[in-house]
Amino acid sequence: MTAEADRRFMRLALTLGARGMGNVWPNPAVGCVIVREGRIVGRGWTQPGGRPHAEVIALAAAGAAARGATAYVSLEPCAHHGRTPPCCDALAAAGVARVVTALEDPDPRVAGRGHDMLRRCGIAITTGVEAEAARRDHCGFLSRVQRGRPMVTLKLASSFDGRIATASGESQWITGAPARRLVHAQRARHDAVLVGGGTARADDPMLTVRGLGARHQPLRLVASRHLALPVDGALARSAGDVPLWLLHEGGSVPAALCERWQDLGARLVPVPLGPGRQLDPKGMLEVLGAEGLTRVFCEGGGQLAASLLAQGLVDELVGFTAGLALGAEGQPSIGALGIGALAEAPRFRLAEAQAVGPDIMHRWVAL
Amino acid sequence: MTAEADRRFMRLALTLGARGMGNVWPNPAVGCVIVREGRIVGRGWTQPGGRPHAEVIALAAAGAAARGATAYVSLEPCAHHGRTPPCCDALAAAGVARVVTALEDPDPRVAGRGHDMLRRCGIAITTGVEAEAARRDHCGFLSRVQRGRPMVTLKLASSFDGRIATASGESQWITGAPARRLVHAQRARHDAVLVGGGTARADDPMLTVRGLGARHQPLRLVASRHLALPVDGALARSAGDVPLWLLHEGGSVPAALCERWQDLGARLVPVPLGPGRQLDPKGMLEVLGAEGLTRVFCEGGGQLAASLLAQGLVDELVGFTAGLALGAEGQPSIGALGIGALAEAPRFRLAEAQAVGPDIMHRWVAL
Repeated sequence: MTAEADRRFMRLALTLGARGMGNVWPNPAVGCVIVREGRIVGRGWTQPGGRPHAEVIALAAAGAAARGATAYVSLEPCAHHGRTPPCCDALAAAGVARVVTALEDPDPRVAGRGHDMLRRCGIAITTGVEAEAARRDHCGFLSRVQRGRPMVTLKLASSFDGRIATASGESQWITGAPARRLVHAQRARHDAVLVGGGTARADDPMLTVRGLGARHQPLRLVASRHLALPVDGALARSAGDVPLWLLHEGGSVPAALCERWQDLGARLVPVPLGPGRQLDPKGMLEVLGAEGLTRVFCEGGGQLAASLLAQGLVDELVGFTAGLALGAEGQPSIGALGIGALAEAPRFRLAEAQAVGPDIMHRWVAL
Repeated sequence: MTAEADRRFMRLALTLGARGMGNVWPNPAVGCVIVREGRIVGRGWTQPGGRPHAEVIALAAAGAAARGATAYVSLEPCAHHGRTPPCCDALAAAGVARVVTALEDPDPRVAGRGHDMLRRCGIAITTGVEAEAARRDHCGFLSRVQRGRPMVTLKLASSFDGRIATASGESQWITGAPARRLVHAQRARHDAVLVGGGTARADDPMLTVRGLGARHQPLRLVASRHLALPVDGALARSAGDVPLWLLHEGGSVPAALCERWQDLGARLVPVPLGPGRQLDPKGMLEVLGAEGLTRVFCEGGGQLAASLLAQGLVDELVGFTAGLALGAEGQPSIGALGIGALAEAPRFRLAEAQAVGPDIMHRWVAL
């Protein structure tokens, strides 16, 4: 097999793996392609909830054809008994001759042991194929394992001059239907959607994925120190149907209010305070990481956006810009950052820019 | 000649005409292509200062080959004796058999008379070919003739969150060198570059076209009611070399200050006040229109941008967005607009969006 063919099959494995994004946490969204004599005999990706793993699905599809074949896996196969038996055992038992992976799995229970186990079984190993693309796709999983927190995408939909609402709070709609549809697709590729309490109060959003035939909804997270949220709004009414976690200061909220929300179906998640007596954004993400979340999609508002940016916690920035001006009285997309000099500003590298209906979408990744 | 060939040659005429943009006011930047038996025998465009006209240049290039040929002109040829003899006479004298134009010239001295005169000479006329593109290219000339004011492009270079400087005023550089280079190219295609007094004080800009080998500089306009501008800065020092017009409230500025600026080489242009006791943006543009300007490139600051937008005086919006966040303390790209509801916001249609080095450029036109 040529190196170019290896890269091509790995890109396919990554594409398949991406189908699980937002739906497999705390596991990585892995893809697997099994190739025999240049022909694809099995394909698989991590299934909803995180199992079965991609390799198991692909091996089942390949059946006897897996014998002597090459398996392309977008992350090192697991070597440990977790909720499922090790994929390395399954690959060896199926008689796979060669395994190509994109990355070593940094999970300390794997961390090279998967590759070693396969080698001991006489299986040829090639690793690091399309590693950069795999690091991008697995960034949420890698972030949780290596930094103890999920990756964060910050999405801001604003006017040409960076305003997310008029002075009176009117924000529906600054961007058009195609941009909003794309936002729903982006929500679906994350484990959870997060907003601050101010946005929850002002917009009473549902934060669900709609109009895309999605069978799975990301978690809904609202950060509100004192749970100052309407108990009769859209979020509250739907708390029994679509999971809603309320990130708040544990202990400071009256027990009756906590019970009210729990009765509605919400889960109360205490978060430590930072030096400014606000919810600490880093501590909040660590709590979410400990809960298993790998990918969080934050949709503002300006204060939450600023607190995440100020601590360098935003991994990806997605802007939707509309062709209208709201002026300086409008509400800023990003709150106060406390920046003195230009050199202190958090900076991002452009990944993508395109028209989306009447608006533009621009995506940036942290430097 | 097929309609498709007509459109193709007209697009070439428009491309040639665009070479004069910024350099031919008060005249339109016209292009002309002379085609005989499918072969281009002459090309021309309006020369610096507005004459000779495109047709004369193209006819001279064609010589005897113009006899029986078709002339493609991006605007109706003139029929009146202005600073040059009528181009209609020249076309007829050269024996051109057919003239194709994109638009009728709304100048009351032309307004169909050019087409009529040509018809009377037995020349076949086709008009309205690539009319929309021509209206775009000639928008400054058309605006001056029809609305008595130049077209206005508003350029804003800002952070991801719409800030043009830090709280302390630091703005160099938010965008990268490729974006700044493109701004210089855009300046060159306008008759004048305009900034408000605040920007002139904060940035002490040159407002010239640099690094492009330009032999021509657009006028430099600074709007400052009381001429509260540094008399020892870059603008002042260069006022004798590159034309500088100071738009101010006539009568309110001490005579000594006026003389100081005149001695430096600046021209003082009085502008009427609006109801808010500020320079009236519409009145200001009308003064500039009466002076012959057709295309003005405004580079802020936020207050001037807001006053132009609030009165619907911005025809084209050019945004450069950088991948950094400055936060709500940063200076807004657009000042207060006094907008109550979202429906009142000035709206623009996306024309173009692309990456420019590390930044994005997005261009919008007024709805």
